[in-house]
Amino acid sequence: MNLKAYLEEIKNLVDASLDQYLPPAEKFPKSVHQAMRHILFAGGKRVRPILALSAGEMVGGTINSILPCACALEFIHTYSLIHDDLPAMDNDDYRRGILTTHKKFGEAIAILAGDALLTEAFRLLSCEKVTKSFPPKVLIEVINEVALAAGSGGMIGGQVVDMESEGREIDLPLLEYIHTHKTGALILVSVRMGAKLGGGKAEEIEALTKYGESVGLAFQITDDLLNIEGKKEELGKNPGTDAAKSKATYPQLLGLSESKRRAEDLISSAHIALEPFGPKAETLKEIANFIISRRY
Amino acid sequence: MNLKAYLEEIKNLVDASLDQYLPPAEKFPKSVHQAMRHILFAGGKRVRPILALSAGEMVGGTINSILPCACALEFIHTYSLIHDDLPAMDNDDYRRGILTTHKKFGEAIAILAGDALLTEAFRLLSCEKVTKSFPPKVLIEVINEVALAAGSGGMIGGQVVDMESEGREIDLPLLEYIHTHKTGALILVSVRMGAKLGGGKAEEIEALTKYGESVGLAFQITDDLLNIEGKKEELGKNPGTDAAKSKATYPQLLGLSESKRRAEDLISSAHIALEPFGPKAETLKEIANFIISRRY
Repeated sequence: MNLKAYLEEIKNLVDASLDQYLPPAEKFPKSVHQAMRHILFAGGKRVRPILALSAGEMVGGTINSILPCACALEFIHTYSLIHDDLPAMDNDDYRRGILTTHKKFGEAIAILAGDALLTEAFRLLSCEKVTKSFPPKVLIEVINEVALAAGSGGMIGGQVVDMESEGREIDLPLLEYIHTHKTGALILVSVRMGAKLGGGKAEEIEALTKYGESVGLAFQITDDLLNIEGKKEELGKNPGTDAAKSKATYPQLLGLSESKRRAEDLISSAHIALEPFGPKAETLKEIANFIISRRY
Repeated sequence: MNLKAYLEEIKNLVDASLDQYLPPAEKFPKSVHQAMRHILFAGGKRVRPILALSAGEMVGGTINSILPCACALEFIHTYSLIHDDLPAMDNDDYRRGILTTHKKFGEAIAILAGDALLTEAFRLLSCEKVTKSFPPKVLIEVINEVALAAGSGGMIGGQVVDMESEGREIDLPLLEYIHTHKTGALILVSVRMGAKLGGGKAEEIEALTKYGESVGLAFQITDDLLNIEGKKEELGKNPGTDAAKSKATYPQLLGLSESKRRAEDLISSAHIALEPFGPKAETLKEIANFIISRRY
């Protein structure tokens, strides 16, 4: 099977599992359960679960055992999108080509649906299926890492600084703080989750950490570039919003071509980090390539 | 030492621990770290941590070991207050006698501070200090129970139905759903957390579950009563808000005296559930009494 077909298969597996692990849309109270699913099933790339599963498989784990924890990452990512889109934050009307959650269900339900997805992530990370597959000690470590990556010292911290920097001149170190926290932290922890649950040795986890750091930053630089060069039909949201909000971005600070060069350098670093794994690392290398070549 | 002094001592310990386990107010980015502390340190009753600690101590655990997990409950409770107060939800300006978080820090930071407190709760439940005190298997069970109690099948579900019932006629079973989920679920899991972490036997956990269910519902009926009969200076917020929003409450459905009788019956049931513990249960009985006699 070629890599593209393999990744497509994992993505389909993730989509089916997300559906399985969420409360049904018809469960009382319906509004919040439907709102939790609205953006989640509108065609996400599933980058975080795919990274966790591929990293886990590479170090000797099985896709099936890691799936619920990988889905928890997508719940966290989706909650952050729902809350970021709120009027008090980015005030976006469209996401993935459909109305944002608050536009469809109202602000209150959107806030609660985000809260519920975040909570559900930790339920899933500690559910029976998961405890049957992994030593509880490793699970607790993973839960702690996920909470750290998603919290005010990670993703939320990045979102706070991003928001507070709108319309201000900021320098590259602060921009790098925003990118490594807002996007990088959850991507890094996805890779590390896979490495740990897959049973990776200390030096394998270390190598995958370098990989995760590089692809995490490259992912956000590419997002910045797509916000300038992307097409609405491919993005599923309006491009140009960063400039309209005077957001500091890599292209704004360094220019388009230097930003692209940095993203490419990061992907090279990610490839180099994977060298010790030899041919087993082809999938993760391909994912790294996708991360900067994507059009959405 | 008398019970009142004992409870005061536990409360002071909880307050000090909450401060210790949260990121410092001066940590970058400051806004969110200050907002996380704003309502948390404005004089909460700490009912949930106190229940966890007292239940845990009664079955043989130590206050010191259970403290971080008990504080996680207060983080979750506080996040729910911050989000409930938002303009899109209850739109309240005051809480605990001071401005609500969004009034003081703006809506975006209030949303993110709530998100961060929820996330921080799960970080705390899986932190090193905790893993040194308890078997990881028990901790995973506790994390799972807390997530279930706080999620869309628990606290969030209750808040959704509460909100969607405003201005509508609802019957007692639906009102009971709201109360047992919105408030009861987290109170019950507080007691069960203590029972489990304290090393309680199966029948002790069962007895404490009955206690937790009764005090959880009694707590919310008392909240309904205080919203009618309470004084702003004691409550720290405006009374009369339920009636103004046409919220269904126990007094509205059953009248004041029948509601009081039900709350008292529930406290009697809570006392009866504690009988197997003999004199060791005095503290938990006293807490149950406080729950319906409180003025705030």
